[in-house]
Amino acid sequence: MSRNFFNKNGPFKISKIIDFLKLKTYLEKEAYVSDIKDIYSANSDNITFYHSKKYRKAASETKASFCITSDHLKNDLPNTCKSLITNNILLSTAIITEKFYPDSINDNFDTTVSKIEQMSLKNKIFYGTNVLIGKNVSIGLNCKIGHNVIIEKDVIIGDNCSIGSNTIIRYSIIKNNVNILDNCIIGKHGFGFFPHKQKNIRYPHIGIVEIADNCEIGSGTTIDRGSMSNTIIGSNTFIDNQVHIAHNVKIGSNSIIAGQVGIAGSSIIGNNVKIGGKVGISGHIHIGDNVEIGGGSGVIKDIPNNHKVMGYPAKNIRDFIKENR
Amino acid sequence: MSRNFFNKNGPFKISKIIDFLKLKTYLEKEAYVSDIKDIYSANSDNITFYHSKKYRKAASETKASFCITSDHLKNDLPNTCKSLITNNILLSTAIITEKFYPDSINDNFDTTVSKIEQMSLKNKIFYGTNVLIGKNVSIGLNCKIGHNVIIEKDVIIGDNCSIGSNTIIRYSIIKNNVNILDNCIIGKHGFGFFPHKQKNIRYPHIGIVEIADNCEIGSGTTIDRGSMSNTIIGSNTFIDNQVHIAHNVKIGSNSIIAGQVGIAGSSIIGNNVKIGGKVGISGHIHIGDNVEIGGGSGVIKDIPNNHKVMGYPAKNIRDFIKENR
Amino acid sequence: MSRNFFNKNGPFKISKIIDFLKLKTYLEKEAYVSDIKDIYSANSDNITFYHSKKYRKAASETKASFCITSDHLKNDLPNTCKSLITNNILLSTAIITEKFYPDSINDNFDTTVSKIEQMSLKNKIFYGTNVLIGKNVSIGLNCKIGHNVIIEKDVIIGDNCSIGSNTIIRYSIIKNNVNILDNCIIGKHGFGFFPHKQKNIRYPHIGIVEIADNCEIGSGTTIDRGSMSNTIIGSNTFIDNQVHIAHNVKIGSNSIIAGQVGIAGSSIIGNNVKIGGKVGISGHIHIGDNVEIGGGSGVIKDIPNNHKVMGYPAKNIRDFIKENR
Repeated sequence: MSRNFFNKNGPFKISKIIDFLKLKTYLEKEAYVSDIKDIYSANSDNITFYHSKKYRKAASETKASFCITSDHLKNDLPNTCKSLITNNILLSTAIITEKFYPDSINDNFDTTVSKIEQMSLKNKIFYGTNVLIGKNVSIGLNCKIGHNVIIEKDVIIGDNCSIGSNTIIRYSIIKNNVNILDNCIIGKHGFGFFPHKQKNIRYPHIGIVEIADNCEIGSGTTIDRGSMSNTIIGSNTFIDNQVHIAHNVKIGSNSIIAGQVGIAGSSIIGNNVKIGGKVGISGHIHIGDNVEIGGGSGVIKDIPNNHKVMGYPAKNIRDFIKENR
Repeated sequence: MSRNFFNKNGPFKISKIIDFLKLKTYLEKEAYVSDIKDIYSANSDNITFYHSKKYRKAASETKASFCITSDHLKNDLPNTCKSLITNNILLSTAIITEKFYPDSINDNFDTTVSKIEQMSLKNKIFYGTNVLIGKNVSIGLNCKIGHNVIIEKDVIIGDNCSIGSNTIIRYSIIKNNVNILDNCIIGKHGFGFFPHKQKNIRYPHIGIVEIADNCEIGSGTTIDRGSMSNTIIGSNTFIDNQVHIAHNVKIGSNSIIAGQVGIAGSSIIGNNVKIGGKVGISGHIHIGDNVEIGGGSGVIKDIPNNHKVMGYPAKNIRDFIKENR
Repeated sequence: MSRNFFNKNGPFKISKIIDFLKLKTYLEKEAYVSDIKDIYSANSDNITFYHSKKYRKAASETKASFCITSDHLKNDLPNTCKSLITNNILLSTAIITEKFYPDSINDNFDTTVSKIEQMSLKNKIFYGTNVLIGKNVSIGLNCKIGHNVIIEKDVIIGDNCSIGSNTIIRYSIIKNNVNILDNCIIGKHGFGFFPHKQKNIRYPHIGIVEIADNCEIGSGTTIDRGSMSNTIIGSNTFIDNQVHIAHNVKIGSNSIIAGQVGIAGSSIIGNNVKIGGKVGISGHIHIGDNVEIGGGSGVIKDIPNNHKVMGYPAKNIRDFIKENR
């Protein structure tokens, strides 16, 4: 569903993909790929990418027919998936993603917006002054849209939602009974790019933000959209002020995230997780269900279900307290 | 004074209160209570609540005639205060508070605002473009109100104040000579709620934000209003950018709070306190006068007057420096 | 160049400067000074200030003819530079700076702005709704200016820049190909003042913000302008969301600064530096080229070129990992 947010090119012949990447070795040039997807969701007419042993299990089960990877990793892929070997997997992935989705690089302001007074949906929602709504935006029943809110093209908002003043939402699907408070930025592209002297190369972000039922998002919070998969906030999860949720992060249901927390890219947080104020969580971390993380902690490795941790780096909370008596 | 910001119901018969809480044990059913207040400020026709031994001294001196508490705590109350015993004190308090103040749960945008050009106060202040002012707002002499500012209903602002562009102020009383810079959110409800599978229960926030004379509040800072008591910033206290002050926090005079500090709910900070950048302070902490807290510290317990601390958890600054040489 | 942003008084006779500071000792009263500058950039018709041994080398080479300093420091100055001895160097510097630049103290909203539709530059840029542009603003070719953006007087923006919605820019020079995302505040005065019971004394901020070619600035980021020198972001440096860059900070080229980082006043960061999420850096720190700082670190002393550090306080990253195994 998320792909509808971005203009899409393709399908491309594999020979064309090989040309884009300036590769020389690959032979089967007549096949086509219709899209690029992450290793979990790719299907047989897609190309995917595999860049870290962290995803070995998923790689071994991928349904993709083609995969951008390295010589070192290629043997983890099933026989049904042919590898395109490259020196820089993520850069190659970015190049191909941009070919499929040429508009996913930059986040210029949405030029399709109109003042809400000029739109038919004005009749079914409560709205403030200077509200701007993009093309094809869908908003449910009984919603309240605050002053100076900008909802960019194709965004979907469910029923009984309240959007605070000055908030900007783009590339997002918001379900029902969600409260987003003032000054939030939901759905901007993530902080993903390839460092390059002279001029960094921005990574395409074709994922969206999904916020499930009954969530609350505090003031000044930023939630970046995903690069390849979506950034997801599970149902009934409450997030406080000035929190930053980076691209591709997935948070479960019934979790509580206090003020000024930062969660780096691609980390996965379980259900019923409680995260204290100012906690930082590294990228590509997995935090289990029912985990509690004490305020101020810095989490740099996975935490299994049902653990309570605190400290920087975070450790068992009893050890932290004992050592700091 | 703060209660005027919220529509108020009541008085309620105690029998009605007992019904709301589905209690069975209480007898004296003919008394009335006119309001619910915290244990410090409640008077004899009020109901209050007492949920933690931290407040034992205040409980023993409360003037309230009724108190929501537990079997375990009830004996700390004076004879003049009758207890209503419940399993979940804070949830019961929330239920009763919402009965008195039904509009204090959500923070939907203020629909009473008008463009300032249509109001008589336009003649005495300097104002920018797209300024929105709610019903009954009072603004003093020689104030400057920036572009896109929203000042919601009933807010009071004194003389010689400067409000930065894009700032939103609600449920607040701002005294004289206060500078609030751009993009601040002052007075939203705090991050207080009862976790509940399926759908969390929001805590009513009937406190306000009070900012005393000569303060400065930096850009992007959020100050949440109180739940039962007020959030208070003392006179001549300067706060830097991207600071988060949670509900019920009280900060003294002449204090200095550097960038990205976060102070969790109900903590009390003294006078002449210096807090370095990125410090986090836990909830329900008491920090004395003349305290200095080094940048990056995490404060998880009380700090007496005149102490200098640093570290996570914060300790005597000399010990911190010695251990980290 | 930056001085053109502020109205300037002077030149002042040295006797007048001595009067402003209520000094008694100085004799050479007939000389004039045309401006006040920092110790690096002052020339022979300027007055400067020297307040810390940290700047001893620069002090010994200053071209200024006069210098506000202390009895303790005055001997570091060359013979060509006459010292004005004062008990509080920075306060005296603030007093004189305000005499030269009386409008540099407060950040009231810019009253010179017009709606972009009424300006001639509307014909060469793409712009959203409710865009406000101040007097003498210069914007290059092919720029995109989002909704509700405020660009205050005298700001200069180069070619191919994209400014996100709700962003406010003042006292800044932005070069080419710069992306500034939503909700940023660029160029407000720094958090510099003299604590004073009853009423703090604000420090004049006559520096600006300079952002070089090819930079990206994330959503909700604040970059304060300098007090005496400029705040500088080097070319091709990318900054994530909710970062705070304080006054006078100078960041080199090709650096990467992740979300929620805070850099305190006057610190200098080299080229090719990578700073992880939530890092805090103290003021007046020098960080060399090619340094990597792990997420969550607190940096409280200088880091030489090519070092990798982590921890609070930050230390060699291998030591940090070993100690926390």
